Amino acid sequence: MENEMHTDTEKHLELNANRSIERLLHFLGIPSISTDSAHDSDCVAAAEWLVKELSSIGMNARLVPATRHPAIIAHGPRVENARHVLFYGHYDVQPPEPLDEWESSPFDPEIKTRDGREVIHGRGAADDKGQLMTFVEACRALHETGGIPLNLTFLIEGEEEIGSPSVKKLLETYKNELSADIALICDTGMLDFDSPAIGCQLRGFVGEIITIEAASSDLHSGNYGGAARNPAVVMSQILASLVNKDGSISLPGFYEGVEDTSEDLMRDWKQLSTMEANLLEEVGLRVPAGEQGRSVLEQVWARPSFDINSLSSGYVGPGFKTVLPSTAQAKISFRLVGNQDPYNIREELRHAIQKLVPADCKVNFEAFGTVPAVQMDIGRSEFTLVKDAIRDVWKNPCVFIGMGGSIPIVTDIKKLLGLDTVLLGFSLSDDHMHAPNEKYDLECFRKGTLSWLRILRALEASSCPEMS
Amino acid sequence: MENEMHTDTEKHLELNANRSIERLLHFLGIPSISTDSAHDSDCVAAAEWLVKELSSIGMNARLVPATRHPAIIAHGPRVENARHVLFYGHYDVQPPEPLDEWESSPFDPEIKTRDGREVIHGRGAADDKGQLMTFVEACRALHETGGIPLNLTFLIEGEEEIGSPSVKKLLETYKNELSADIALICDTGMLDFDSPAIGCQLRGFVGEIITIEAASSDLHSGNYGGAARNPAVVMSQILASLVNKDGSISLPGFYEGVEDTSEDLMRDWKQLSTMEANLLEEVGLRVPAGEQGRSVLEQVWARPSFDINSLSSGYVGPGFKTVLPSTAQAKISFRLVGNQDPYNIREELRHAIQKLVPADCKVNFEAFGTVPAVQMDIGRSEFTLVKDAIRDVWKNPCVFIGMGGSIPIVTDIKKLLGLDTVLLGFSLSDDHMHAPNEKYDLECFRKGTLSWLRILRALEASSCPEMS
Repeated sequence: MENEMHTDTEKHLELNANRSIERLLHFLGIPSISTDSAHDSDCVAAAEWLVKELSSIGMNARLVPATRHPAIIAHGPRVENARHVLFYGHYDVQPPEPLDEWESSPFDPEIKTRDGREVIHGRGAADDKGQLMTFVEACRALHETGGIPLNLTFLIEGEEEIGSPSVKKLLETYKNELSADIALICDTGMLDFDSPAIGCQLRGFVGEIITIEAASSDLHSGNYGGAARNPAVVMSQILASLVNKDGSISLPGFYEGVEDTSEDLMRDWKQLSTMEANLLEEVGLRVPAGEQGRSVLEQVWARPSFDINSLSSGYVGPGFKTVLPSTAQAKISFRLVGNQDPYNIREELRHAIQKLVPADCKVNFEAFGTVPAVQMDIGRSEFTLVKDAIRDVWKNPCVFIGMGGSIPIVTDIKKLLGLDTVLLGFSLSDDHMHAPNEKYDLECFRKGTLSWLRILRALEASSCPEMS
Repeated sequence: MENEMHTDTEKHLELNANRSIERLLHFLGIPSISTDSAHDSDCVAAAEWLVKELSSIGMNARLVPATRHPAIIAHGPRVENARHVLFYGHYDVQPPEPLDEWESSPFDPEIKTRDGREVIHGRGAADDKGQLMTFVEACRALHETGGIPLNLTFLIEGEEEIGSPSVKKLLETYKNELSADIALICDTGMLDFDSPAIGCQLRGFVGEIITIEAASSDLHSGNYGGAARNPAVVMSQILASLVNKDGSISLPGFYEGVEDTSEDLMRDWKQLSTMEANLLEEVGLRVPAGEQGRSVLEQVWARPSFDINSLSSGYVGPGFKTVLPSTAQAKISFRLVGNQDPYNIREELRHAIQKLVPADCKVNFEAFGTVPAVQMDIGRSEFTLVKDAIRDVWKNPCVFIGMGGSIPIVTDIKKLLGLDTVLLGFSLSDDHMHAPNEKYDLECFRKGTLSWLRILRALEASSCPEMS
């Protein structure tokens, strides 16, 4: 009986695959760029579209207000003696710039063939609209063939790409109705096209926008060069001072709370030799830039890092203007691991910079994101159930990996709701997330949807020792 | 007899002042914008108008072809046993945009009252049509009251505002007929309304556009941060390495050819205490950024400098993108003095940068400008004659100053014709050159014309030991 149901639902999913894709293409057509206030109404449109979609699969869905763009909370019908799952996703996307590098318009999504495989091309295809829809479409198939067999709650926000400024408040305000046994998020990647992975630790994040101001206006570098302070020179000196000669980060106390990776995980990661070899090669690099004696995977999953995300000063158009700029701006960030304290690190950063700013200059700091690193309790049964449920969907078995990026919501879900999160996603490393020509492999979309279908069935069927 | 002639000519100038201004207003009405090909015929019209004007004062004037817009060469009648003077100017102007910031149409010039003084308002009023016409009108007064008492050649170009692409070729092609004893240029400014100045040294220039390329595309700083090389970090380290802790420039051999300013000049500059005090204060700065123990004027006129003119990397729009950029670009420049060799300096710069570029990165260099510094031989009699000739025209005596910027024509005149140039002009710092509401003070125009009249008389009257 159960197997038959599985088969029916999976057949239903397959028969309706084109409609699933049509819905996703519509969703991708909405330019819900959260950082740009010119797109505020597009964010609302994306949120309202999701409410309609979730309602159509039997969810009681509504918009809830947030700082910049509304979130969505939705509940399925109550299922007695079943696990309660909280699914989180986000409908907002990164700005598409530089526009001239896109093969076709970022918000006019298309199915294209790339390297012999069909892909969905458009901003948000992988991050996170396409991934979010794998879960929604799995739920739709269940809904349309007998019902979703678990207690299910959705929390979907529209502010993830601007650092989720409202998530904490949402989790606090709606704590009771968001309570569950486990959280699921589909916003991460595969190791490769055949190999799914569950993220079991996430790096933290501290971002800072630094602006140095010198003269009251841009000056002629001939008339003033030498006597007038150049804020771009000051900025270069500040940024260079943050990194030691051996590539380590110079801030006092920065490495407090950094711990070595467990031997079990290190053993798993050593087996990911293709990934270890390909990570840099795929992007045209050869030499790992991080701490010597650490593998590439360890450098991006389990070691802290410093990056300059943006630099701007003076005349950046074509040609050359002999201007002595009045301001220079850098956007920088640190990735954190273990128990590094993002608040302390921001304080040390600002203190170190202040000391290097000359008397004539003003420095302005703007915080962007303050997220500690997270480690999951992978001893919980759901982690094994999920891992096993998708064994036959993909060619290779699912493995536990670290994650270099931050997903602040995971931290907050752990801290405020007390839940571990299963981070399972189906994007590929060449999906160009946050970059021009973002895409999502059509096969990842299909198999991702099937994976969630089997996972929800597995979570339903299993005994549930942790259930409260 | 000579004094009477002086008086007659000056009286003639005064009686015909309105006609001089009418001619200038007509000239300003021609929109000879050299950078905009829509104005090619206006450039020809301005050039032809000048040929007619110069012919009317006894010059043998003609158009000569150049890259974009014709130049004018004109010769006066031969005067035996007199100095030969080469006057250089330009008839082209900057584009007037943004148009909506002009009080009245940029090419419909008017006399207006501003801050209680009459000014000529219009594009090119100061740069360089108004200044050029001070010299032409002085020549006219001489021509109409007995003749220009010197050998006089004009070279007027129409491509100065687009970087004078033809000047070297013009100087080479017409070298014989442009030969002279001294060059005069009226395209510079006063210290203030009462204080004329002669530029006697110009800093040189070496500009370079540096591009560092790392990964083949922008990356997610979470997924790659730590392992993938960040070109903006590399750029910061490179730029910071160019400056020593004491503010000096670190390139090997950079200070070769830098010499201390003569005691005479330093004495003159110490008297410019208002300028020394105001230069930085006017732009909101207080602390001179250059070498300790050097005055502000010395720092901008007689010491080399390093500036970052532009920085760009990653996402520079509003908000924050956690991108790990694939490229970083800086536009930098050095100002040079004395005998510093701009070619050596560019070579040392590239060599020093190459050494700091990690194995994985590519660096691309693009040269922008290679101009040695110029020092005039102010021991030549013409410099003293000019300085003394205008003593009674202005409230304060004329002084020798340095100039922080480069004027490529001056370098070329020195190099190709072997001539020193007297840089004397009458624009004020609030003339809005290259900006909306450009103006030229009417009194600067009048006194400027009188100044040239007295200078030409002085150059005629004096003994001339350097004459060949």
